[in-house]
Amino acid sequence: MNWKARLLKLNGLMPEMDDAGALAWSTLADAAEGAELVFLGLDDGKACFAAVPERGDASPRMANPQLWSLMATLSADDLALYGGARSIVDWHARHRFCAACGGDTKIGKGGWQRACTVCGTEHFPRTDPVTIMLVEYDDGSGAKLLLGRGLGWPERAYSALAGFVEPGESIEEAVAREVLEESGIVAKEVHYIASQPWPFPSQLMVGCHAVAENDEITLDTTELADARWFTRAEVTAALNGDENAPMNTPPRQAIASHLLKWWIEKGA
Amino acid sequence: MNWKARLLKLNGLMPEMDDAGALAWSTLADAAEGAELVFLGLDDGKACFAAVPERGDASPRMANPQLWSLMATLSADDLALYGGARSIVDWHARHRFCAACGGDTKIGKGGWQRACTVCGTEHFPRTDPVTIMLVEYDDGSGAKLLLGRGLGWPERAYSALAGFVEPGESIEEAVAREVLEESGIVAKEVHYIASQPWPFPSQLMVGCHAVAENDEITLDTTELADARWFTRAEVTAALNGDENAPMNTPPRQAIASHLLKWWIEKGA
Ligand SMILES: [Zn+2]
Ligand SMILES: [Zn+2]
Repeated sequence: MNWKARLLKLNGLMPEMDDAGALAWSTLADAAEGAELVFLGLDDGKACFAAVPERGDASPRMANPQLWSLMATLSADDLALYGGARSIVDWHARHRFCAACGGDTKIGKGGWQRACTVCGTEHFPRTDPVTIMLVEYDDGSGAKLLLGRGLGWPERAYSALAGFVEPGESIEEAVAREVLEESGIVAKEVHYIASQPWPFPSQLMVGCHAVAENDEITLDTTELADARWFTRAEVTAALNGDENAPMNTPPRQAIASHLLKWWIEKGA
Repeated sequence: MNWKARLLKLNGLMPEMDDAGALAWSTLADAAEGAELVFLGLDDGKACFAAVPERGDASPRMANPQLWSLMATLSADDLALYGGARSIVDWHARHRFCAACGGDTKIGKGGWQRACTVCGTEHFPRTDPVTIMLVEYDDGSGAKLLLGRGLGWPERAYSALAGFVEPGESIEEAVAREVLEESGIVAKEVHYIASQPWPFPSQLMVGCHAVAENDEITLDTTELADARWFTRAEVTAALNGDENAPMNTPPRQAIASHLLKWWIEKGA
């Protein structure tokens, strides 16, 4: 028997860092009395755990400036580990009661479900499918791409439009509806490109490409601060980190960044 | 002002039929005292509603023989309408309490969310992404397709393997993991084909194609009653309803049926 184990150091939902800028770890003895522990997996022969914090993120948002700065700091491996841990402990913290009967639930299966102590109903973490799409228009004068700036985002931050798949929709229907609602643009020829899990809080990002029938934008100001068309030269400059580019690209770990690179590489 | 409205007749979660075999409707006056009503949309100028039943489906299953017989009976339009209504009223019936605090929740926004009367947390219906995949093997002697029979399914009922996308996975990773777990087959070159909402209880089905590296099946008997390889001739015979085919195909409304047709039509 081997008792090697370590506990991810969290301050609420935010990670603590060691002197080298990596995720900090302590031992199971440091877990708060009675804290629920989630098994994250084995790393380098040690069992890794995270403790469920007292409260979760009451209004989880996909785009969170505090998280963006973390993404610039953490290594890819640390970011994936932290993202997965944050997502699951946040879910536990926000699901201490049974939606079916209101009874207390308790953690089970190493932290990958909760069960009701009253009616027995089992509850599983949810994963919400979200479409994120590159909408392209070309009237013969050169391709351009529709990108938007979210409410509260920095001035030059633009990214692909995105939205949750609603009950009863296919991926392709969700793309067309979301583009029409947010920008007034009619999108056709929707094609899947790639997918990526995004644990802030718990999305499955589904990246698509579509062709716009028109280029006159009617902005939904309850969803977006701005939306506009960008040329290949402008997107290329932004991806290269050019200070004169009219936009900053999304974090390199986000699927939006991969999609923009895909668009430049695919050519006309 | 126009008060035209109609209420879907449900017996628990099952639909009632009229003499013509279509969904039966009554008026809002027939709703039980204090029943929560979900707005389903407008149809033929009438507002359509469904009432939340006393209890939902305690153990919702994707493959339900009772539902399969409904699918054989209802028109495509009626099936889509019933599926959407069933999914949402079932969700309401199973979410009368707040997972965050245990308080009572009440229906809001015409039935597309619930809000906690104690802590104010808003709760939204979930949509679970599920991968469903055609895994193909060809050692030079002709392509064959891996299909499985679920536990409790009829003897000749085979369909594409399927499974939930787990937190932290992409669609492509989920396909490979699920195929390996259920059949021992290593799947590579995973490609997206099509998606379809499936409201029993609330899935987004994501259909993919993959190539098998091996053809020796190691069955996970906790998930499947059987899995085997089918030739193009066998799948074609099944799709044609041939009584001598070694399998029955899935209901024609299910994405599995569309995927099988896609596989035959795409050719080698
Ligand atoms: Zn319960
Ligand atoms: Zn509450």
